[in-house]
Amino acid sequence: MTQVTGPAAVDVERPEDGITPPSRLDTEALGERLLGRWADKRRLARRLAGQPELARIDGQTMAEHRERVSAQLKYLVDTGSVHYAFPERLGGEDNHGGNIAGFEELVIADPSLQIKAGVQWGLFGAAVLHLGTKEHHDKWLPAIMSLEVPGAFAMTETGHGSDVASIATTATFDPDTEEFVISTPHRAAWKDYLGNAAKDGLAAVVFAKLITRGVDHGVHAFYVPIRDAERNFLPGVGGEDDGLKGGLNGIDNGRLHFDGVRIPRSNLLDRYGQVHPDGRYTSPIASPGRRFFTMLGTLVQGRVSLDGAAVAASKVALAISVKYATERRQFHAGSALEEEVLLDYQRHQRRLLTRLATTYAAAFAHEELLEKFDGVFSGAHDTDGDRQDLETLAAALKPLSTWHALDTLQECREACGGAGFLAENRFTSLRADLDVYATFEGDNNVLLQLVAKRLLADYAKEFRNADFGALARWVASQAADATLHRTGLRQVAQTFADTGSVRKSATYLKDEDTQRQLLTDRVSSMVRDIAADLKRASRLPQSEAAALFNSRQHDLIEAAKAHAELLQWEAFTRALPSIDDGDTRQIMTWVRDLFGLGLVEKNLAWYLMHGRLSAQRAKTLGDYIHRLLLRLRPFAQDLVDAFGYGPEHLRAPIASGAERRRQEEAAAYAAALRAEGTAPVPEKQARAGAGG
Amino acid sequence: MTQVTGPAAVDVERPEDGITPPSRLDTEALGERLLGRWADKRRLARRLAGQPELARIDGQTMAEHRERVSAQLKYLVDTGSVHYAFPERLGGEDNHGGNIAGFEELVIADPSLQIKAGVQWGLFGAAVLHLGTKEHHDKWLPAIMSLEVPGAFAMTETGHGSDVASIATTATFDPDTEEFVISTPHRAAWKDYLGNAAKDGLAAVVFAKLITRGVDHGVHAFYVPIRDAERNFLPGVGGEDDGLKGGLNGIDNGRLHFDGVRIPRSNLLDRYGQVHPDGRYTSPIASPGRRFFTMLGTLVQGRVSLDGAAVAASKVALAISVKYATERRQFHAGSALEEEVLLDYQRHQRRLLTRLATTYAAAFAHEELLEKFDGVFSGAHDTDGDRQDLETLAAALKPLSTWHALDTLQECREACGGAGFLAENRFTSLRADLDVYATFEGDNNVLLQLVAKRLLADYAKEFRNADFGALARWVASQAADATLHRTGLRQVAQTFADTGSVRKSATYLKDEDTQRQLLTDRVSSMVRDIAADLKRASRLPQSEAAALFNSRQHDLIEAAKAHAELLQWEAFTRALPSIDDGDTRQIMTWVRDLFGLGLVEKNLAWYLMHGRLSAQRAKTLGDYIHRLLLRLRPFAQDLVDAFGYGPEHLRAPIASGAERRRQEEAAAYAAALRAEGTAPVPEKQARAGAGG
Repeated sequence: MTQVTGPAAVDVERPEDGITPPSRLDTEALGERLLGRWADKRRLARRLAGQPELARIDGQTMAEHRERVSAQLKYLVDTGSVHYAFPERLGGEDNHGGNIAGFEELVIADPSLQIKAGVQWGLFGAAVLHLGTKEHHDKWLPAIMSLEVPGAFAMTETGHGSDVASIATTATFDPDTEEFVISTPHRAAWKDYLGNAAKDGLAAVVFAKLITRGVDHGVHAFYVPIRDAERNFLPGVGGEDDGLKGGLNGIDNGRLHFDGVRIPRSNLLDRYGQVHPDGRYTSPIASPGRRFFTMLGTLVQGRVSLDGAAVAASKVALAISVKYATERRQFHAGSALEEEVLLDYQRHQRRLLTRLATTYAAAFAHEELLEKFDGVFSGAHDTDGDRQDLETLAAALKPLSTWHALDTLQECREACGGAGFLAENRFTSLRADLDVYATFEGDNNVLLQLVAKRLLADYAKEFRNADFGALARWVASQAADATLHRTGLRQVAQTFADTGSVRKSATYLKDEDTQRQLLTDRVSSMVRDIAADLKRASRLPQSEAAALFNSRQHDLIEAAKAHAELLQWEAFTRALPSIDDGDTRQIMTWVRDLFGLGLVEKNLAWYLMHGRLSAQRAKTLGDYIHRLLLRLRPFAQDLVDAFGYGPEHLRAPIASGAERRRQEEAAAYAAALRAEGTAPVPEKQARAGAGG
Repeated sequence: MTQVTGPAAVDVERPEDGITPPSRLDTEALGERLLGRWADKRRLARRLAGQPELARIDGQTMAEHRERVSAQLKYLVDTGSVHYAFPERLGGEDNHGGNIAGFEELVIADPSLQIKAGVQWGLFGAAVLHLGTKEHHDKWLPAIMSLEVPGAFAMTETGHGSDVASIATTATFDPDTEEFVISTPHRAAWKDYLGNAAKDGLAAVVFAKLITRGVDHGVHAFYVPIRDAERNFLPGVGGEDDGLKGGLNGIDNGRLHFDGVRIPRSNLLDRYGQVHPDGRYTSPIASPGRRFFTMLGTLVQGRVSLDGAAVAASKVALAISVKYATERRQFHAGSALEEEVLLDYQRHQRRLLTRLATTYAAAFAHEELLEKFDGVFSGAHDTDGDRQDLETLAAALKPLSTWHALDTLQECREACGGAGFLAENRFTSLRADLDVYATFEGDNNVLLQLVAKRLLADYAKEFRNADFGALARWVASQAADATLHRTGLRQVAQTFADTGSVRKSATYLKDEDTQRQLLTDRVSSMVRDIAADLKRASRLPQSEAAALFNSRQHDLIEAAKAHAELLQWEAFTRALPSIDDGDTRQIMTWVRDLFGLGLVEKNLAWYLMHGRLSAQRAKTLGDYIHRLLLRLRPFAQDLVDAFGYGPEHLRAPIASGAERRRQEEAAAYAAALRAEGTAPVPEKQARAGAGG
């Protein structure tokens, strides 16, 4: 535990809470809890990620970096680290959750390595696994697993990213030769941003509209060889390099286009849609829409793993910056002799500890996402509902965690000043690499809109089968609610209840049920309000309905965010009872409170406008958050230590203890001068001494 | 003017405002207004910045980039572009405002070029100019101006950045040889992060504590040769390369240390402090504290120019992303045939147009800052008060504009999806380079604290000389205020005044005086509240006073931000009457409203908590902002065109019209298929046709 000094240490513990202040945090037990169900896989992956062979080398050219990452992929194969999700009979373990848990830790070594591995085994390989059948697995998976055939996942086109349904590449069946003809009709239909496409890929899973007998059956996936052994494009295939990117330059992203490229009928990955020799199309899923979403749904693991990788990167950033903030001193405040430790400044606590709390929330939520993912993909819990829930959960959490990682990396960078800007201290390169996590595997804003639509659908469903009585009661309660809010009666009630006592107000705010109620109420009220407004849409012509929907787009996305934040808060809260050590649980409860009340503070205007909090209670919120920061300050280092990353993972000179050594050397020098009596006298003092 | 289509176009103009909707924006006149007082210098600099010789080449190694930027600096000298601020008699123009106006435009070519030029002429050269005397000017400026002597500005140390007063390098006067002895006593005192230090610098202006006759006279600046003509370190000088950074890798940042390096007495830049041959120290400024701040104050131009460069980068980012957003289509909403243009989506408008409004506000505020700067440095308005105002203004605006630039670059990057992540489209590299603007030339959080302290001091001054009556009246009014707010009477009054009318509420919100009052009231109330709380500090021991101050640090910084935002809003508002064209003025008034109401929305919780806005009015704010977005949508392209950057400045393929060509090609292809009757029939339709 870090010794607390400086001005911020005042008032750390107030007796008013009636609890014995916790004295220590059990870093090890908390760390174990964070490792989660697949702790073994995570540990193995961290051991790998800490090896110098896999660490990113800053300043490499794009060509050098690409070569290094390609070689590292082979190293992953050799160490047997990337086959967990594949079938046992082919040398895998059928372990889906464990596979992701390990895979996402690779981000610590180098995000390019994580994503390039993700392209090969998580997208290209997983498409063959989930969209193909046993015959395809036997034929292609061994070479994919061994990296004998590196491949691209050719879904996105220059013209269409998140809107996969609108891609324009076609695969037209020719019954005469029993072949599909793959074609790119125009420039916008070129496949784009594909890892492995610029250089390494020998094959690709190409998503194209399947056309047979003059009918367009929508997007399907096809296995298409693209280069020969000498890495020359096969006839009809062309492409170009995407060139330098903002990050992830260890990956050879590129474009592909196809000019009448013929592949055998059996190269259609036909688990969800088959074309017979005569061109007849069949599918186990009758609705083209549901079929499309089922196919895409099998690829949810990309989003799941980005969520986990973003959490891991946030942890690393906080581990580095908190360490530095506990050693670095700057400005004299409480003493003329000694400068203040950065983390004793309130603002610095605000900047780092609130993000630490969010990182914990995101970590617990991610673990639940992994469980859900494993349930579906292991077949243990694999109903349609489970799959939809999994997709919604991933679509909700990935935007929050990836944006949080970018925000955290930037704040940590700034909190370390000029030292934070040096590449050797990790923040800038991690941030540059993770930037694109916000838009790939589904643009964050688009994903949140999907979540919002699901919320609206669920809301509508609740009332679809409701009898008249239920509906009437709902309308009545809504009206009562509105009256209560408009007249501010609820606020007045709170004000009288507190009668000006900050303590009563704090007791209210830190209550778990209060937090849950506030967060839940906001989501349901937002959804209800939007739903009431959009009800008319069904009676409007398409363009007007679209305009109406568009007029609430911002609110919809905000509602989805609120929902996702609630999910994080709930996951955090569910995790608390599993922490056995009382002191640790108390500290983690404060961290949860900091997260929950941080959400309330961020959306405080909503709570006030809608009468959920009185102005008086709202005014105490900031102070209470600052009190939580003071309480957590002594455990800040422990809280990042529990993340379990060692120096081999942090690899940042400013987190190595070098700053403390410099401080000690400087202090010793000053002390020696004072002892010798050779320290120069400050001018002000000299003049005062001279009677000036 | 762009043609508006899609769902967002509904309700663009509502008759309720009683004004004729503006039909066109005078891009040229608005552009001229933005160029400001030093339009000629800005134009010249933009011509330079548009030349391929000065454009950044992505993907260069650090060594190549450094070499290129060094060569570009010579090009700037040859074209006579960087000497405006130097004395006329030495070939300059004594034009301080014009110099910065031009200099900051270089960021468009390459931020490394801007900052490296800033190091040479704006820091190293300006220190000699402002801290030295005529003799120093004659001796050193010509070689600095011609780049014959590249130099470093050696202020920051590894151990001390923003706290310059605590640097540890010493310059001890030796009267026997009439020399200063420069020494670095320990590792933390190494000069660090200095441009020109790793490779190019032949000399440095070194900031060190001046010690003579056993007295420490505080930080002074010394001219110190560091390398010989072969670029080897001179005896006693050492250093190392800072290596790869998160950006600005065209600059050779490095560290320097000094081991008893002797320089002649005359190398002290002694405008504000002189050491006589016998070691006697004299200064025109008696107070060591005031002397220190006066010396630092002469170097304010760094902050001024970062403010302007950040605005320029934001403009470029918005010009690229708005252009793309007006061409790119994605997802079907209002029509089955045509996809929607991105900028017709409400969320996209929120993301880009609100930042466009802030950029305009920052641009107008920057122009006022430049005027203030020129007034002081030309001597036209150069009182102590002017200098303090200038420093406070720079300290207030630079944090806002640099953070805004980072936020804007990131949002624009994401708004362009995968294409935004390609280096060729500029966002990622500009963002990487501008990252450090948030912490150099003064950490943003530290600068805002300076502003806050100034606000508190001004507040205290107001009451220092107040008679008892004034004070009593103030206390009474404060009490009345508190009562009014606690009981929510003000809110109730607003609620009744509006009687539920959104229109009345909107009329209230868009009123200029309302906005001014809301923004001003927030600043003064925050300062008053904090001041009341901190009053006790003067009676407390240092450590307790520090703890009290620290307990309000977050609020202090928020108050400073609110002040800076008000300054931006006021500058924007002052600029409006100077726009002659009525339509353009109307559109720009909307932009100002969007900015002002955006600020109110961001801080809505404060307005509600403190009873300044009723819940009812607050609830209409979001809708009114969305209405402003719809009104501005048709002029979005014009508003970025007015920034005046051509393709030679944007240099982004996605802003070249390529996207529109791709869309047209795809649409033509689809139309041709339909015309030929060869388009495949969607499965759903085929089945419906077959009676399925």
